[in-house]
Amino acid sequence: MLDLQFLGTSAGIPTKSRNVTALAVGQTANKPWLLIDCGEATQQQLLHTHWSANTLSAICITHVHGDHCYGLPGMLASAGLNKRTQPLTIIAPLPLWQWLEHTIALTDLFLSFELQFVDVTTLLEERFYVDDFEISAVALSHRVPSYAYKIRHRREVRQLDRDALFAHGLPAGPLWGMLQNGQDVYYEGRNYPASLYLEQHEQRVCALIGGDNDSPSLLQAACDGVQVLVHEATYTQDIADKVGAFPMHSSAKQTAEFAYQAAIPNLVLTHFSARYGDAQALEPLLAEAKRYYHGHVHLAEDFAQYRLLPSGEFQPLTTRDA
Amino acid sequence: MLDLQFLGTSAGIPTKSRNVTALAVGQTANKPWLLIDCGEATQQQLLHTHWSANTLSAICITHVHGDHCYGLPGMLASAGLNKRTQPLTIIAPLPLWQWLEHTIALTDLFLSFELQFVDVTTLLEERFYVDDFEISAVALSHRVPSYAYKIRHRREVRQLDRDALFAHGLPAGPLWGMLQNGQDVYYEGRNYPASLYLEQHEQRVCALIGGDNDSPSLLQAACDGVQVLVHEATYTQDIADKVGAFPMHSSAKQTAEFAYQAAIPNLVLTHFSARYGDAQALEPLLAEAKRYYHGHVHLAEDFAQYRLLPSGEFQPLTTRDA
Repeated sequence: MLDLQFLGTSAGIPTKSRNVTALAVGQTANKPWLLIDCGEATQQQLLHTHWSANTLSAICITHVHGDHCYGLPGMLASAGLNKRTQPLTIIAPLPLWQWLEHTIALTDLFLSFELQFVDVTTLLEERFYVDDFEISAVALSHRVPSYAYKIRHRREVRQLDRDALFAHGLPAGPLWGMLQNGQDVYYEGRNYPASLYLEQHEQRVCALIGGDNDSPSLLQAACDGVQVLVHEATYTQDIADKVGAFPMHSSAKQTAEFAYQAAIPNLVLTHFSARYGDAQALEPLLAEAKRYYHGHVHLAEDFAQYRLLPSGEFQPLTTRDA
Repeated sequence: MLDLQFLGTSAGIPTKSRNVTALAVGQTANKPWLLIDCGEATQQQLLHTHWSANTLSAICITHVHGDHCYGLPGMLASAGLNKRTQPLTIIAPLPLWQWLEHTIALTDLFLSFELQFVDVTTLLEERFYVDDFEISAVALSHRVPSYAYKIRHRREVRQLDRDALFAHGLPAGPLWGMLQNGQDVYYEGRNYPASLYLEQHEQRVCALIGGDNDSPSLLQAACDGVQVLVHEATYTQDIADKVGAFPMHSSAKQTAEFAYQAAIPNLVLTHFSARYGDAQALEPLLAEAKRYYHGHVHLAEDFAQYRLLPSGEFQPLTTRDA
């Protein structure tokens, strides 16, 4: 199981209702989690959620544009002032790391914890493991090097065979707890070996989170096993045509067409141009996406939260959705 | 007349109700204004006010700590995306400028307007003029070089002598408008020289805005003509004693004692430690300040706005105050 909560869904500049890009990915409260991008004021957005910088495993930055990374120094500074001690991994393009180094030196930024930098380009070939997350990267096409992050989450689940335990006469309570912890139990003259009553299996989920990108098809080779794709759809196609190719963004049509042909079951569009003022103004993007894609499609909103289940089911938790 | 609107009043880290430091200083909407400090998410705060980055004259940074400057790159980036063309002055310590240069280079930050840097140390001796503002600086005492900004605003006011015009028989209307614009008027056989009916005088106001500082008395020499002092009061004295000298901040007592002996008529305390959760929790700071200072004292809140009149009157405009 993996929750995705959008902390910012606006492209380039913040609006009254949408902050710039950031996405929390993780299990429920107090478990390790990942932050994908960290636009300015991400730490302020987090104050209104259950995610804590103390349990953050890694921050993955898709590219160096400010609306995706200017919240990073403040995020780190506050974690320092809150006395975080656990090392924190930063996965990003190299210039982002250089910027952080200058920022630390020039703004007297004291961190109470170690930063561990991982150059995103190494994840084009290798996988990076942190807590229960397996992270790899895909190169995209934008005005600066930009990347998608493929995130697999694995969790060992131990489940008691409750039916068998009831049938064999072991009363529910602390003895079940011992079995759950892998200890054998002896009760009223009978052995209850944990190995017999404890079923272990691995739960896996897989999400693919894009950075800014004008060519969704670059994600094709990475789509194996992907249950949900989060990708920018900065404009509708008609606006994209008017704006021209320079910004190097995707339209709802482009993203939807790709998700359709890659047979991805769930799609969340995000990173909307500020010209679309409110949720109503975004309806044409949703309509356009639905013309080209027939899976489950959502338009992200700030604080919208979704739950991805091992079955591939993808449930909106807190917001109105299509 | 000068309005001061607080955009952030929390020390170090943002809270749910208080953002990190920034203060807008200027006349009403669409007039040039100054931004003193630019903590992270200042541009997001501005979205909920009438101040526009398009009419911003200068940004004055008191010191390089992140809670006073991490909003600067995003602020500039958004002004660029909104196609500002007028040059913008940045007054700051030199390392802040170096950080901005690295930020521009490493995060592909394109600005549609020129940045003009003024090293704050030059304003220790000289005055800087931009639009109707005269700005000078005072060196303070903090963990890094920190400065206060003394801001004088001058405005030529042309006022018609309405009583004389009525008495001399010139009817109110477009002819009064011509006089107001300095043109002489001929009406029904009589001359009405603008010089006779137009009174010009200069309206002046003066505010002193401190950065982080553990020694308010450093402001002594700059207090001439100051009508309002905005200064940090991070803790009450008892908490300051517990925290110890290292953070190099002022208590409410210290700031109040200084304002009292410097005979400053209005005092706004700001930059409160996040340990003081809400307005109620801050009451001990106000009580402490009132024990040592007998002028008009206010505790700043986010979005609180005050109007300083040439008479020295200082009026809260939008929020509850002491």
